[in-house]
Parts: sequence; structure tokens; C-alpha cells
Amino acid sequence: MEMTKIFRDATKEEVDKVMEKSWQAFLAYKKCSLKQRADFMRTIAVELEKIRSEVIPVAVEETHLPEGRLNGELGRTIFQLNNYAKAAEEGAWLDARIDTAIPERKPNPKPDLRKMLVPLGPVVVFGSSNFPFAYSTAGGDTACAFAAGCPVIVKAHPAHAHTSEIVAGAIMKAVGICNMPEGIFAHVHGASFEVGKWLVMHPLTKAVGFTGSLAGGRALFDTANQRKEPIPVFAEMGSINPVFLMPDKLQHEPETVAKMYAASITQGVGQFCTNPGLIIGIEGKSLNTFITALSAEIKKIEPANMLHRGIAKAFWQKRKDALGQKGVHTEAVSEAQAEEMQGAPTLASASAAAFLNNPVLHQEVFGPYSLIVKCKNADEMRQVVLHTEGQLTSTIMATEEDIRQHPEILETVQNICGRLIMNGVPTGVDVCLSMQHGGPYPATTDSRFTSVGADGIRRFARPLCYQNFPDHLLPEELQNANPSGIWRTVDDQLTKDKIS
Amino acid sequence: MEMTKIFRDATKEEVDKVMEKSWQAFLAYKKCSLKQRADFMRTIAVELEKIRSEVIPVAVEETHLPEGRLNGELGRTIFQLNNYAKAAEEGAWLDARIDTAIPERKPNPKPDLRKMLVPLGPVVVFGSSNFPFAYSTAGGDTACAFAAGCPVIVKAHPAHAHTSEIVAGAIMKAVGICNMPEGIFAHVHGASFEVGKWLVMHPLTKAVGFTGSLAGGRALFDTANQRKEPIPVFAEMGSINPVFLMPDKLQHEPETVAKMYAASITQGVGQFCTNPGLIIGIEGKSLNTFITALSAEIKKIEPANMLHRGIAKAFWQKRKDALGQKGVHTEAVSEAQAEEMQGAPTLASASAAAFLNNPVLHQEVFGPYSLIVKCKNADEMRQVVLHTEGQLTSTIMATEEDIRQHPEILETVQNICGRLIMNGVPTGVDVCLSMQHGGPYPATTDSRFTSVGADGIRRFARPLCYQNFPDHLLPEELQNANPSGIWRTVDDQLTKDKIS
Repeated sequence: MEMTKIFRDATKEEVDKVMEKSWQAFLAYKKCSLKQRADFMRTIAVELEKIRSEVIPVAVEETHLPEGRLNGELGRTIFQLNNYAKAAEEGAWLDARIDTAIPERKPNPKPDLRKMLVPLGPVVVFGSSNFPFAYSTAGGDTACAFAAGCPVIVKAHPAHAHTSEIVAGAIMKAVGICNMPEGIFAHVHGASFEVGKWLVMHPLTKAVGFTGSLAGGRALFDTANQRKEPIPVFAEMGSINPVFLMPDKLQHEPETVAKMYAASITQGVGQFCTNPGLIIGIEGKSLNTFITALSAEIKKIEPANMLHRGIAKAFWQKRKDALGQKGVHTEAVSEAQAEEMQGAPTLASASAAAFLNNPVLHQEVFGPYSLIVKCKNADEMRQVVLHTEGQLTSTIMATEEDIRQHPEILETVQNICGRLIMNGVPTGVDVCLSMQHGGPYPATTDSRFTSVGADGIRRFARPLCYQNFPDHLLPEELQNANPSGIWRTVDDQLTKDKIS
Repeated sequence: MEMTKIFRDATKEEVDKVMEKSWQAFLAYKKCSLKQRADFMRTIAVELEKIRSEVIPVAVEETHLPEGRLNGELGRTIFQLNNYAKAAEEGAWLDARIDTAIPERKPNPKPDLRKMLVPLGPVVVFGSSNFPFAYSTAGGDTACAFAAGCPVIVKAHPAHAHTSEIVAGAIMKAVGICNMPEGIFAHVHGASFEVGKWLVMHPLTKAVGFTGSLAGGRALFDTANQRKEPIPVFAEMGSINPVFLMPDKLQHEPETVAKMYAASITQGVGQFCTNPGLIIGIEGKSLNTFITALSAEIKKIEPANMLHRGIAKAFWQKRKDALGQKGVHTEAVSEAQAEEMQGAPTLASASAAAFLNNPVLHQEVFGPYSLIVKCKNADEMRQVVLHTEGQLTSTIMATEEDIRQHPEILETVQNICGRLIMNGVPTGVDVCLSMQHGGPYPATTDSRFTSVGADGIRRFARPLCYQNFPDHLLPEELQNANPSGIWRTVDDQLTKDKIS
């Protein structure tokens, strides 16, 4: 690897020290107001902008992603920090609930009960290889943990350790500017699994955020669950994002759909967790027209460098495995010659029968690859849905007529994914409150949470109920006067009003 | 055991059949409206009232709990069903979020994104021994799962299998009245761990609710996490509910506090998960006065029958183990002779040093038992907090002066519990939205959720996001007109308004 800098793995003793400091910082940071948390996050955003010219060339060298893309991604990272800061400050995510006392209730007086979310404690974040900014050191998990009131320990991704180091520096600068406790953020290097394991096993670690492969995420999940005190692990482990092409849609717009999907499959050399790796259609003339059109597009798209050698090697190996399966036909490959580090846009096809009977074809080929599954009829398409594992996204390409004819597709596809797209592409994950970036296993380890959008903050917080507390000893957010002006559910009514 | 009826354990084949039916019911039930779910729950409540005279005598015989208590608990169960039905119908728990499209956004148009919670799928419920109604067959977990849109499979508690069978009959009657799919509820007997394991391991099971012991809850949690597709397990495993007696409070009201706690320790023969099993004070005259007063009360309280032989046996064994530890002094025992099936109110004491060094003293002695921990000073009390595991509740008995003198107690105690009580007793868990019945491990397997109050519904639901859907294909709750009239966050504003 052409790493610009070599970083030494942390030792067990260093990990212990980091976690002790992190816990001390937790005790201080949890007392900060929502505004202080938000200001800290906004300061990180400002510091990230300042390192732009320094970090982008390093990231280009480490990840082989184009400068334009990396600049955009840094912008997204800054946007996320500001967006979650705003959400943190507005406080709706705290789920503040108040039931006032009823002293005269029989047989027992009703106590005064007030509940809101409080931070879990130090959160260990494992960033992704494919988003060196937005889902890495100062990325979504880190932003959510800070918003929740948790310190963060980032295990730097070895494939972009230098980029990570520079970003960590920007965060530490914000720590200083905002007078935050020093241990609120730590940056730990570790190319070996050991370092990650020590971090996850440490008794002072209270939650884990991970973005990466199924094997990596599952290993951390298993480790965390074997602790004496198990802790929540939210691992986003990617998926194959099935696309269901309905007959009427395909008959009307085979070429438009083909162009959309050629772009989506190969965008970012297919290195997105929402990359459409599976396209399911019903045999017939319009599917053939579509395949021809999509193949023509795929052939025209040039191979490009993948993130690192390991990822390129895995792409070629998994692609070879997939293409070598019985009944798999290679439909199209980029006409330009690919180099070793590059991913070549590839389109394959197989019958639904072949797909249903072969687990290899259900596995993600991370890169610019997609498999078309040809079904004999709508019922076989339904079988494909029923035998597809949990996904981040699923997409239905359909006219109103298709939905009328096949209501069961819409019905069944909802069960397998976290986000359901109508007549679009799964790539492109907007950062907003209504986004769900999650889904049933193996897309994630817990389908009840998201790693994109401010709802992701809840992964790192738990409700704490105060019973019969004098007003001035309550957290500001639960006091009668509602000085923070947040939404609260008071005696079952959602309101911003004071309690008189 | 004096079981009124013997029930045969289900076979593996029967479990498979039950789960298949449950899944089919899920596909139908998830399409029911919130109102239909709520009506179903209310009908169960009505049917429970109808079986009162039949089921209470059976429950008295199986659980040895007094008739008055069981009648009250059945009332609580009915209240819960109605309370969660109302919450389900009002829909705030759905966390509906809408971000409307911005077609003109650069560089990419912003899609229309709409998200709400959808049910996980079939939920297996393991009821408790100590609440044969409220946290059992038609109890909190079952009510939450139905509210979320999930079918329920109850593994009947072998200690009150007949009671469970009668309650299951009432639920099935409601299933018929409401024309619900038959598989929406199943009742499975199993005295062996095998039956529970088959249920948790079944691929169609999507979540587990459990109330009981640490050993039992952890075993199910481990089983669920070893599945190919891990599933969420919310296990409420009880705790020792520490009570911190601050010096000024004790000096002013030693006898009042003693009377309160004698009642709380022995209520229901101490068989509550919120039973105060640990009382921490600072050595001195007022602590001695308190111990004398509490001892006098404890001696007066008569032993009473425990839930079943196994629980009584465990009580005497764990009590013996605890009292036999080095440095543990028996302060008071009920003066009346206890029979084999009975639990004898018992008060012990130990120094903080003895407590801190002995893990046996941190374990729950399920029954009318409490240990007083004598600290040399406030700093030693803080050490006790730091070395106490996760708890459902903690209580601080303090005057304003105490809080001023020892702010660190309030600060540190918050870290170890789900509910923090000021100048009260932990027993008595109100069913309302602001209740938190949960807490850091080992109180539960996931401190981010509660098993009491309508927020418990969220344990069994996950967000699903719809991207660019035509309005009429969206679930009613996300349609522009907001026909359900629920609270929704539209473009970051919480509102009940339509979208124009």
C-alpha cells in the first residue's frame, strides 16, 4: 500500500489509559448543556473546513477516490455535524416525558415521574473504508455520539490512517477551543483485530458504532455480546440492495431505466453500501431490451481505481466466484482493460432457479458488479423476495398498472429492507431526519436504529426516569419552566408549554 | 408442586408449526390499522375481566399470592392493555418523519422521504413467575407487541401454567371476536429450557421479551445472539435496587424512613424486581437508630408463602449464603417461625469494606431480604456506588442540605440505574409514559428500552423509509392529508397539519 505514513498499533496498556480518560471525560461531558454539545460539534465542523486543503491530497493518495468526490464528502461530513448539532440542541430526540403527581390518587398517590434520554458512556467508532470522512473519524457515528453526550474513541481505519490522523487533529483543536475535557475524543491506531477487540471488551466502553463488512461487523457484535456486561453494537454491514423491475415499467422505459442503473451500479466504482447488486426482472422481450441497453452502457464505462489493494483483490475474487457459479452468464464487462487496482464494471445474469438455490449469489460483490435475476413470472419474483436476506434498501421500478397487477410485490419487499425506493436508484443517501440507513440483519445488527439522520443519536442514549425530584434538582430539560423550550409529552400531551 | 393441571411440553414439530402460523398471521396483522390493533387489545381487556372469577382461584392456588393482590394485578393488566391501546392508536410512538422533495436542489434533487415504525415480526414472550398476569401471558410484553403490530407466542410459565392457559383462552376469544388471524397469538407449554430455546432459535421469531432471573435472561440473550440472524432480546432480570440514606435525612426522620422501608422490603414477600435489597448509610448514631427501628419492624412482620417451592428454596439458600459471608451480621429476622414454603423477613448488615470485596453480597436474594451497608464516610459511599452494577432503580433519601453537602451522590447514582427515586421507595411501578422500567446490565439486556409504559412498544418495531412513493401507496400515517391525525415531524417541524 502507498500509505503516506505508517502508524504504530496501540498497545493494551495504551487502550486502557485511553478508556480511563474517556470515562473521566464522560462524567464531565454529560453535564454539559445541549447548547454546549451543539457548539462543540459546530466547532469541529469549522475546524474540518480549515484542514480541507491539507487533508484532501492525503485522502486522494490513501483512498484513490477522486478529489471532487472527497471534497464533496468532506462537505457532507461538515453538514452532518451541523445538522445533528441542531437536532441535539432542539432536544426532540430526548423523548422528554413528564407525568405530574396525583397525590390524592387511591389506593396509592401517583408520584411525579419525568424521563429523558441520557448518554450511555464512551462509544468506540470503527469507520468505513469507503467514506474516509462521512462515515469515519468525524463522521456520522462520531457526530451522533457527541450529540448524545458520549465521548468517542475512534479506531482509525488502517487504509486511510493518515487522513484519519489529520481529521482527529481538527477534532482535538475543537476540544481545546470549546474547553471540553481532553478525553472526550481519542484516536487509536490498530491494523490488527486485537486493538479493536481490546477497545470493545474494555469495561468502560458502553457502545460501538461500525461501518464495514459483514465479517468485521459480526465479529465485533459477537465480541461485545460475550462481555460480562454486553453492550449495544450498531454495525452497518452493507447489502446487495435488490431492484425489482416490474413488466409494465420495463415495457415503457427499458432504456431510461438502463441508463439510470448503469450510472448507479458504477458510481464511485460501485463502492457504496447502497450499490444495486441485484436486479430482478421477469423474462420477456422488455427484459431483454433492458439487458441489451444496460450491457451497452456497462461496456462503455471505464474501470477505475478501487479504495485499496485489499478491496480490489476481494472484488476480483468474489466476482470470479460469482461468475463461475452454475447458470451464471456474464452479460457485459467494461471494454477497457482494467489494472490490478481497478474495478471493472461487470453485469451478469442467472435464472431465478439458479439464484434461489445458490447462497454464493446472495453475497455482496463489493464493487461495480450487478447480477440480473430472470424470473419466469411474478410468482417466482415473489419467491426471490422471500429468499432474500435483510437489506439496507430495496427498489421497485413500477408503473401504477404494475402495482395494481402485483400488489404482493410492494407488500413483501417491505419486510426485507430499511428503505424502499419507488422508481429511483438506491445510491444517494440524504442526511435528514426521515432517512433510514439501516435494515434487518445482515444489513445491520439492529434494525431498530439508523446510522444516517439525527435519529441515529438514539443509538447512544438511554432513558432515565426521575421520581419525585424537587424541580431545581432535575435536568433543565425536565424542569417545570421548560427553560430549554423543547417539545415534551406532559400528561400524555405533546407540548412546549411550561408546567404551572 | 400443587399444580392444578399438568401440561405437556410442546415438541419441536409443534413449535415449528406454531411459528409458521405466527408468520402468516404477521403478514395479515401488519396490514391492520392502528385502530384495529387498539380495538383488539381493548377486546382482550374486556375478555380478561370476564374470566376474573374463574382465573383468580387458580392463580391463588398456583402462585400462593393473596386474592386481593391478584385481583389488583389483573386490574393492572387490563389497565395496561387499554393504556397501550390508546398510545398505539394515537400514533406518536410511530416516530413519523417526513421530508418533502426539493426537485430543484443542486447538484441532486432531494427525494421525498417518509419514515415510520413498522412491526418486527413474531415476538416470543417469556412471562415472569412473580406477576402471573401483569408480566405474563397477557401482560406488558404481549400488549406492547400487539400494539407494535406483532403476533405473540407466549411460553407459559410452568409455575402458573393453568392460570396462563385460562388467560390464553381469553386472548383467543378476543382473536375470534375481532376476526384477527388465528396465529396472532399462540400459547406454548414448556417446563424444559429446550422449548424456550426452539422458540428463540426459530428463524421466523423476530424478537424476544423476557421477565425473570439473570441466569434465565442471559441464557436466552446468548441463544438469540448465536443465531445466524441475531434478534433483539429485551430481558428484564431484576436488581437489588440500592437505597442511599444521607446523614441529614436520617438524623431528622430515622423512624419514618424505617417504617417505609420495612413495608417496601417485605411487600409481596419481597418478590418484586424493585425490592430494595441494599441500603447504604454512613456510620453514626442516626444510622444506628434507623437500624434499631427497622429491625423492630422486620421482627414484627410475619413470614408468608412464596410463589413456589423453587423460589422459596432459592431464597433460603441465597439468604444462607449471604448471611454466612465474612463480616455479615444478621440484624433482624421475623419473630414468627417460617414454614418451608415461606419467606422470613430478614435484615443483615456489613461494612462497606466487606461489601466492596465480596461479589456474593452484590447478588439478589429474591425475597424479603435486605442488606445494610455501613460506610465510614461519604467518600466510601461513593465507592459503593462506583462498584454497584446496573440497576432498575436507585433511591436517594436526602434533605436539601444533604444534596448541598454531597452533590457527587446524585451525580454518580444516575449512572447506575434506569429510575432514580428521591425520598420514596422503589417498589410500586406506575404504568405511564414517563415510567422507565429498565436499566444498565444486568438489570436488563438493553438499557435503551423499557418494559413498562407505552414506550415499551418500540422494542418490537423498526423504522421503514419510503422514498418517492405516490401518496396513495403510502401507509395512511404518512399520507399528505394525515387522515390518522397523528403527530409527525414534517420538514423538521413537529405538527399534526396536512401537507398541501
